[in-house]
Amino acid sequence: MNDKTFLMIPGPTPVPESVLLAMAKHPIGHRSSEFSSILEETYADLKWLFQTQNDVFIYTSSGTGAMEAALSNLVNEGDKVLSLVIGNFGNRWAKIAAGLGADVQKIEVAPGQAIDPKVLKEALDADVNKEIKIVTLTHNETATGVTNPLKELVALIKEHGAISVVDGVTSVGAIDCKMDEWGIDVLVSGSQKGFMIPPGLAFLAASEKAFKVHEQCKHPSFYFNWSAYRKSVRANSTPYTPAVNLIVALNEALKMMKKDGLENILNRHAKHAKALRAAIKAIGLKPMVQDDNIASNAITSIYPPEGISVPDIRSTLKKDFDIVVANGQNELKDKIFRMGTLGFVCDRDVIAAVGALEASLYKLGYKFELGSGVKAAIENLVG
Amino acid sequence: MNDKTFLMIPGPTPVPESVLLAMAKHPIGHRSSEFSSILEETYADLKWLFQTQNDVFIYTSSGTGAMEAALSNLVNEGDKVLSLVIGNFGNRWAKIAAGLGADVQKIEVAPGQAIDPKVLKEALDADVNKEIKIVTLTHNETATGVTNPLKELVALIKEHGAISVVDGVTSVGAIDCKMDEWGIDVLVSGSQKGFMIPPGLAFLAASEKAFKVHEQCKHPSFYFNWSAYRKSVRANSTPYTPAVNLIVALNEALKMMKKDGLENILNRHAKHAKALRAAIKAIGLKPMVQDDNIASNAITSIYPPEGISVPDIRSTLKKDFDIVVANGQNELKDKIFRMGTLGFVCDRDVIAAVGALEASLYKLGYKFELGSGVKAAIENLVG
Repeated sequence: MNDKTFLMIPGPTPVPESVLLAMAKHPIGHRSSEFSSILEETYADLKWLFQTQNDVFIYTSSGTGAMEAALSNLVNEGDKVLSLVIGNFGNRWAKIAAGLGADVQKIEVAPGQAIDPKVLKEALDADVNKEIKIVTLTHNETATGVTNPLKELVALIKEHGAISVVDGVTSVGAIDCKMDEWGIDVLVSGSQKGFMIPPGLAFLAASEKAFKVHEQCKHPSFYFNWSAYRKSVRANSTPYTPAVNLIVALNEALKMMKKDGLENILNRHAKHAKALRAAIKAIGLKPMVQDDNIASNAITSIYPPEGISVPDIRSTLKKDFDIVVANGQNELKDKIFRMGTLGFVCDRDVIAAVGALEASLYKLGYKFELGSGVKAAIENLVG
Repeated sequence: MNDKTFLMIPGPTPVPESVLLAMAKHPIGHRSSEFSSILEETYADLKWLFQTQNDVFIYTSSGTGAMEAALSNLVNEGDKVLSLVIGNFGNRWAKIAAGLGADVQKIEVAPGQAIDPKVLKEALDADVNKEIKIVTLTHNETATGVTNPLKELVALIKEHGAISVVDGVTSVGAIDCKMDEWGIDVLVSGSQKGFMIPPGLAFLAASEKAFKVHEQCKHPSFYFNWSAYRKSVRANSTPYTPAVNLIVALNEALKMMKKDGLENILNRHAKHAKALRAAIKAIGLKPMVQDDNIASNAITSIYPPEGISVPDIRSTLKKDFDIVVANGQNELKDKIFRMGTLGFVCDRDVIAAVGALEASLYKLGYKFELGSGVKAAIENLVG
């Protein structure tokens, strides 16, 4: 049907009607006092969501822009960067660092795995001369649906003395990420994920320690320059013309989120992912991430049953039930499909998605106990 | 009044209702076939508007992002860059180039002036060893409302052999800018100007000659990388998650513009600016740009009458008549005010703006023949 499509991809995620309507208002001047008031509220609410006292910058860019904003404000040619890679997005950090002329070393694990803190500890202990300046890592890997043990990993990086640069694109607002308490130095995120607004904005917060390294950066990006953004945030402004309508939408979405409460939001994500995983297993499908402890609360990667293809599952879900799920990326294409339970998703959506997945598999000839997935989902959602 | 504000600043500019409503639809997946079709249309329409056969990239960023995208894909440390500066935005090119480690030389003129082709010719002729690799320039300087003689300037740069990098942020879609015919190498623009959509997207097109220089760039930006964007444009895609809703809005706005016709659009801008200038003069105010040949069709900078301040004019226009005009920037703050006739502006808007300006000046005690501005505007608008 037209106008009934429901996104269960890892982003863009569904957007509340009130946010869409706020966004649809005529743009106002970005140097007006009205807009300055909106920015003041929004900057305060972002600190709340990032669980930090650091300023949170709003970039008009994709999440990848904020990743470039992180490294291009820190890296000088020849700097040693250690990249912890558990998937496509972890590898993006390594590519950006290499592009800036850094000397990049990687710790890489197979898709579906997380970084073992012991392995990181060994690598950092081996760096006796403290040459590693920056460690990049992913909180929640969107390509696989694995959540790294971020708290433990960041503690080790802090102990070593390097700067931790964390991709929180699909975690902030979905999976607990305590920037200040855990000691994260640089944390980035993107709007079309837990923030419940359309794509187009990205966020970055940096610690004082990271700012000291930034001050030694020889050729920081002009567009993404931290010093310029910090100055603007403190004046309730932006350095350049921002995506005004998206910021108005963000302001509205953050108000909704504060009303809901961070704990409720995080618990809801955990409950939905758990219900989906239980349903998947009940109908005999295999989730890519075997270990429940590292399975993401935002994205679940699923192997198709034998004899049924990922493209068939995706197109049946889309054509017959108006639900969009994602394919795997790169070498995982057609090997897995990925379902997001990220952002503006309610219990009914999870029930509908599991039911529609059952219906699609039934139509495609897969033999299983019809209704068993929805039963497992409901048991996890209710009570 | 609430919800009646009319923007006559140089951006954001007014947005048509149909574009706002298109933007307010639920976001669709950026890897879907539906979105790919929208991109295919949009990329083709952008070529039409840029008057080029080169691919036009869509960046999720401010216009300044596209400026960084231009230079960060070309400049190596130590490269000689000549920046033609006629105002704040011309100077931004020089800052970005210097930040990238370029050896920047400037030709700078007083605010309100354009670059004299003779002066550029002398500078280029003096470069007998052809050491200048890039010349940056501004088509229409937003800070002052001056339009450079771009065709002549670009011809001189072409003859010399350097790469011309042009800021068309407030010119594309408002002032004639023939990328291919004039031989512009790199042309950038921004969405909240002639494109009639909210801020958040920026555009860049590059010639084959510029791409050859890009291939020698040692540390091109990852986020803004030309090669990645060219590959994506040719696959009707984007390298990273774009601002989906703004692209849907852009698609709608470009359809309106094509229906209108480029010649009509450019003529309308010329007519509106001419009417506004005539009105300004009729009521005894002095436009900052004295020479009609270089006065912008998009932005008009105006000196306040003696004894009346720019902040008073701006706040009266805003509070009593719901019209927002811009202050001067940096050293021009409170010296001039700037009125945009850029994008989605009709004849009635110009009459209303002139009338409201008369009413504001009248209220503030300025002595002049009431009605003379509107009379002059109408004489230029009708017939």
